[in-house]
Amino acid sequence: MKSSNLDRLIDPRSVAVIGATEKPGRIGRIVFEQMLRHDGPVYPVNIREKEVLGRKAFARIEDVPGTIDLAVIAVNAKAAVDLAESCAVRGVAHVIVVAGGFSESGPEGRILEERLKQIPLKYPTRILGPNTIGIFVPYNRIDTIFVEHGDRALAGGGGVAFISQSGSVGTESLGLASNTGFGMRAFVGLGNKCDLSETDFLEYFGEDRSTTCLAFYTESLNDGREFLEKAREIARRKPIVVLKAGRTPAGACAVASHTGRLAGSDRVVSGAFRQFGVQRVYDDEELCDAAKTLAILSPAKGNRIALLTPAGGYGVMGADHVALPKQRVPLLMASLCENTRGKIRAMAVPYAAVNNPVDLTASANDRLMAEVLQVILEDPGVDIVVCTAFFSPASITDRLVHEIARCAEQSPKPVIVFTQYGPFTDRYLRRFHRRGVVGFPSIGRAVRAARFLVERAQILKSLEMPDDAA
Amino acid sequence: MKSSNLDRLIDPRSVAVIGATEKPGRIGRIVFEQMLRHDGPVYPVNIREKEVLGRKAFARIEDVPGTIDLAVIAVNAKAAVDLAESCAVRGVAHVIVVAGGFSESGPEGRILEERLKQIPLKYPTRILGPNTIGIFVPYNRIDTIFVEHGDRALAGGGGVAFISQSGSVGTESLGLASNTGFGMRAFVGLGNKCDLSETDFLEYFGEDRSTTCLAFYTESLNDGREFLEKAREIARRKPIVVLKAGRTPAGACAVASHTGRLAGSDRVVSGAFRQFGVQRVYDDEELCDAAKTLAILSPAKGNRIALLTPAGGYGVMGADHVALPKQRVPLLMASLCENTRGKIRAMAVPYAAVNNPVDLTASANDRLMAEVLQVILEDPGVDIVVCTAFFSPASITDRLVHEIARCAEQSPKPVIVFTQYGPFTDRYLRRFHRRGVVGFPSIGRAVRAARFLVERAQILKSLEMPDDAA
Repeated sequence: MKSSNLDRLIDPRSVAVIGATEKPGRIGRIVFEQMLRHDGPVYPVNIREKEVLGRKAFARIEDVPGTIDLAVIAVNAKAAVDLAESCAVRGVAHVIVVAGGFSESGPEGRILEERLKQIPLKYPTRILGPNTIGIFVPYNRIDTIFVEHGDRALAGGGGVAFISQSGSVGTESLGLASNTGFGMRAFVGLGNKCDLSETDFLEYFGEDRSTTCLAFYTESLNDGREFLEKAREIARRKPIVVLKAGRTPAGACAVASHTGRLAGSDRVVSGAFRQFGVQRVYDDEELCDAAKTLAILSPAKGNRIALLTPAGGYGVMGADHVALPKQRVPLLMASLCENTRGKIRAMAVPYAAVNNPVDLTASANDRLMAEVLQVILEDPGVDIVVCTAFFSPASITDRLVHEIARCAEQSPKPVIVFTQYGPFTDRYLRRFHRRGVVGFPSIGRAVRAARFLVERAQILKSLEMPDDAA
Repeated sequence: MKSSNLDRLIDPRSVAVIGATEKPGRIGRIVFEQMLRHDGPVYPVNIREKEVLGRKAFARIEDVPGTIDLAVIAVNAKAAVDLAESCAVRGVAHVIVVAGGFSESGPEGRILEERLKQIPLKYPTRILGPNTIGIFVPYNRIDTIFVEHGDRALAGGGGVAFISQSGSVGTESLGLASNTGFGMRAFVGLGNKCDLSETDFLEYFGEDRSTTCLAFYTESLNDGREFLEKAREIARRKPIVVLKAGRTPAGACAVASHTGRLAGSDRVVSGAFRQFGVQRVYDDEELCDAAKTLAILSPAKGNRIALLTPAGGYGVMGADHVALPKQRVPLLMASLCENTRGKIRAMAVPYAAVNNPVDLTASANDRLMAEVLQVILEDPGVDIVVCTAFFSPASITDRLVHEIARCAEQSPKPVIVFTQYGPFTDRYLRRFHRRGVVGFPSIGRAVRAARFLVERAQILKSLEMPDDAA
């Protein structure tokens, strides 16, 4: 494998869009229009149009002046191969080939993809794709993604590097996640991986200081061993979460028809992931939840969970989720010490429950919630607190967001919020997110998030051991 | 148990609100104001206020003229007991006691609740509560629920009777469910169940023609055997879903401190549920999903699932969810017959996948999606179709909702939609809901919904057998 300095792909200065056009609805139009928000020079390349959206168009990539860091090729498969070669000859550092119709589409496409594959072998140019939805890097306004992908402002401003073999899975699940606040560093759609693969981006974002968690959706790894070796090294510094689809025989068959690749034995994959420090998830929702949690919160010191709630029912369901049998990462209900219980008893109404789960009842107010949260966080027998934040009781106000956030930022222990508020649920989740608090709209997802933090601590511990013992 | 004709509770004509007040934020204000939307007479009862929101107030329940079907008592626990007795003496048919501070709060509260319990033993009056969030019946605008509970318009207009021991769990999860369209017949918060319990409402909504599914959240059943016997009878006509929390020892402890009751052995509960035709779920989200699905869609003829998608990744994940091992209700990936595959091949682009999962690729348009859905529904080897509906591809428009709805309503086989569209996901789910199509924002939840329909068919089959063989 070539060395992967992908700086000029993820953070390019000059960009050319080949197939840029004014025709509405065309991919070349969408990509070019989006790229105009970028600070550096952006050149339209189109053999038929003289001008695109007020910018002088170039007939060929060879005509574009100066260095080109990135060329996005937004034309059909056949034309794209020749144009990619022109880019390589011209010295373009990185090429994104958007078109489908390659190896996923049958014998003819396979031949086209084989030709594309040869280019990076002959030139220093690296290719992302083909059949890729592109890249989206909020911090520098690089966005080649030509389908709706959620509110950009909500998705950005965080530490998750999200690398997805499937464009749809990536953009759709991120779009949904962004509704409740997510925090993305960069999104990469890998497509058919004729050149750049998971391992290249693992390496790149592993080095990137602002990336605090790497999340992958993959159906097949090109170079499993290399990926895992690299992952073990990076997992010492930051968490890596992988959704490996095609885990059942039925799913594996579907992988074959989707990508033309074999998915590999699922049990082998699971065992290897654990050994190499990779956290495995099984669903796009779980992938987003894990990434959001691990990007923000520290690994837990232990697996003892305390639940705080103003609604008894969620204490019960939460305890059920904590004590779920046969989990890869078992959790325990923390035993609160007498000192903690005494303090809560002194603050709460007489009929509050002062054992874990702590149920302050619907009479709780913002202040009491925060004070009790504080007391629970100080209990030496507690590793993580899952706090139910409700806004419907009369004595609870919007200030609860601030009160919880303040406790959470002052404590070394992770605090995870569960909140539901009918049509306003997402709005409150975004408010928590803006204050750096990780929150979810179901108690099950909140407790699952705690599991990721405990697993992360276990991984860090196992990776501290010498390599041959791990 | 007394006979449960709850018509005058669920569909009352005349209502009194005891503790009705103009003071903002008070429960008595919220309940009274909401009840004013009801068609029949609504009387404020308040010993201190002469008039409440323009209506003449009565000092005592005895002063209110005519028959009273329902009195909502919105004052503190101590006062509530005496007032409930006055209502019983006055001949009020049903009383809702809102206040907490009864058996859930300690020895004093237990004594109060014991006094409350005596009332329905001496008088024909039935009591809902205490410590209940009340009832919400969209079709007749009866709403005593004093906390935010989602958009009423979205939650109504359907066949789900939702009966919840915990008020918060009920209202919060319904509030969230209503964001994507739900379809509720009635909501009942049971509270401490000093009189009316799950079994009463099981019986009532079992008989109610417009109720198409019963959903329960419960932590402990007062009369398990009676509930189950009744359930078996009703399950022959309509589906019953139960979320029984407190399934783990930790959860059971939490139940004890929440309600002062014991939760019962979890394995015994599971076995009994299955035998008596009850579908068990484990999470508030799952409860809402199951109820929404079973209220609208018919039981499946078999367990063979076909997946249709314009995005390969979701085909893969969907197949994984279908083939998930160790499920209570196993599903199979349907084998499409050659005739079906030939027809799809003739319609789709050459690189589409014509085996199950059928992947039409991002080039699909509304028409093609509908035509292929139609062809798949006609395949004799398919029992249920899970259809991914995406709106981001350029050739797909909002009309897809209509196209899918038309196919779905013309087919005897269930169609379940999975859709995601970033910030617009809920909006599209509501559109599908308005057209009678059941949809979910994750492929995992969509496939899980198929499982409920297969389980429902299994239950109907097992209940057809003579009782002693069941």
